[in-house]
Amino acid sequence: MTPSEHAELALLLEVAGAPKPGNVDRERDLADLRFEQFLAGAVGAREGLELAAEPDERLGAAFETAVAGMAAASDTNTQFGCLLLVTPLVRTAATGDLTRERASEVTEATTVADAAGFYRAFEHTDVAVGDPPEGAADLDVRRGAAAVPALRERDLTLHDVMELSADGDANAREWTTGFSRVFDAAERIAAGDGPLTDRAADAFLRLLAEEPDTLVVTEHGDATAEAVRSEAERLIEAPDADIREFADDLVERGVNPGTTADLTAAALFVALESGASVAGVSTDGTASGGDGGGGQ
Amino acid sequence: MTPSEHAELALLLEVAGAPKPGNVDRERDLADLRFEQFLAGAVGAREGLELAAEPDERLGAAFETAVAGMAAASDTNTQFGCLLLVTPLVRTAATGDLTRERASEVTEATTVADAAGFYRAFEHTDVAVGDPPEGAADLDVRRGAAAVPALRERDLTLHDVMELSADGDANAREWTTGFSRVFDAAERIAAGDGPLTDRAADAFLRLLAEEPDTLVVTEHGDATAEAVRSEAERLIEAPDADIREFADDLVERGVNPGTTADLTAAALFVALESGASVAGVSTDGTASGGDGGGGQ
Repeated sequence: MTPSEHAELALLLEVAGAPKPGNVDRERDLADLRFEQFLAGAVGAREGLELAAEPDERLGAAFETAVAGMAAASDTNTQFGCLLLVTPLVRTAATGDLTRERASEVTEATTVADAAGFYRAFEHTDVAVGDPPEGAADLDVRRGAAAVPALRERDLTLHDVMELSADGDANAREWTTGFSRVFDAAERIAAGDGPLTDRAADAFLRLLAEEPDTLVVTEHGDATAEAVRSEAERLIEAPDADIREFADDLVERGVNPGTTADLTAAALFVALESGASVAGVSTDGTASGGDGGGGQ
Repeated sequence: MTPSEHAELALLLEVAGAPKPGNVDRERDLADLRFEQFLAGAVGAREGLELAAEPDERLGAAFETAVAGMAAASDTNTQFGCLLLVTPLVRTAATGDLTRERASEVTEATTVADAAGFYRAFEHTDVAVGDPPEGAADLDVRRGAAAVPALRERDLTLHDVMELSADGDANAREWTTGFSRVFDAAERIAAGDGPLTDRAADAFLRLLAEEPDTLVVTEHGDATAEAVRSEAERLIEAPDADIREFADDLVERGVNPGTTADLTAAALFVALESGASVAGVSTDGTASGGDGGGGQ
């Protein structure tokens, strides 16, 4: 499979992984966000992901196309954060080895035009974001394309924009640290066994236990995010943990650790690129007749 | 969305629809066939579906490419029958109105070269098929490309091949009847409400009740297929039907109504083309923040 195909599959495997407490998964729709919208969002993002694989296309424009396609197909914001992480990783994989070092080179090579594409992407869908850093109101992403003159005036590349956001957004932090949590989680996924969707759910819980989810911080504050992190850590260590009870509780409280889902999708992409596969789990080793006949 | 995007989404919505008794669905993996393999199969089929949308590409070659991509991505046969139905419907939609009449024109315009592509597709994956009609052993699809000289000698188009198979295979019958059951089911899906995956599951059960599943006939005989059909009919009419109990029973007995799943996927494609959408189900009408933040 090509990097753009792996990227689309990573989005699909991410949402299919269950249970992923607080998020849409194979077992759960949320009231205003359904599983099928994530399927459509992944299909709609493909064109932009294919642009990301073309070295001559601007990365920011590829990201904007992916978000626009996702939003048009799903009629909401299903995978904005996933695409922000996966787009540079697709570019990295499409142009050479997918390593932390090369991924950093890709993000560091971004331009002011890429930053403009990122800002324009906010025009296609609603994204939950916090306030901009002090003294940077002109760079508020909620301004969308209106902020582009300020980007130009300050000569900010997309990498610069991510550095400004790294404190409050774990996705931006990945952009500026060689995707370190993504690569670590990918190594765990690739080393695991069983269905990739199960490994995705496990990776999600471990990422959730690792650091407070920054979307939860934005929407509910530090204390809630830390409590969620700490409960995830306890569940990993408890041999008979009831993860589904935790999932029910988060949904009831409207707590959605969406950034952790983004990291999980990106980790799945890296794992797929490094050889993890949906094949080879069957214990009898034979390909079955599948889901349908055809012809005589 | 383009026809090839709708086709890929239809494959995804089909497998996500649950419960679909006897088949992989959002709620169930089979022992040797898992949900994630269908996700990968749909992603892998996309390139061939895009060829199907190009009027200058041979339909048989587009089908072969779709099957090859599906098989490479899923490592098994997940959607051979779905693709056999969807490929000509994508061609129809990409070249004008998607009507029964125009779909018939597309299938009737197929050539011997298209038939050869169909036979070559069997080289990429294992497909459960019955014996060829009497006097047509040289046309056994299990011969794959080896049967191509016989196709040429007999001057058989892909439509002709489907006519030879129509008695024993409901998918072939669709090819020769203007996709009549597919269009009927699509009208029911498009007229329904609620999530498309729920409508898919309902469409599946109604198609199953309508006629014996021909994959079940091939694998288990007429009596079993008729018993499954009759039970599906009873469940539709019973107000408090336990469809999941029926599903458990079929899985336990290894009965897989795969052809009915193929028809369901094709019906979803037609419904999507006629305006059915994953959007607009939410009761509060607002797009949510979605599954992740990004940027500041």
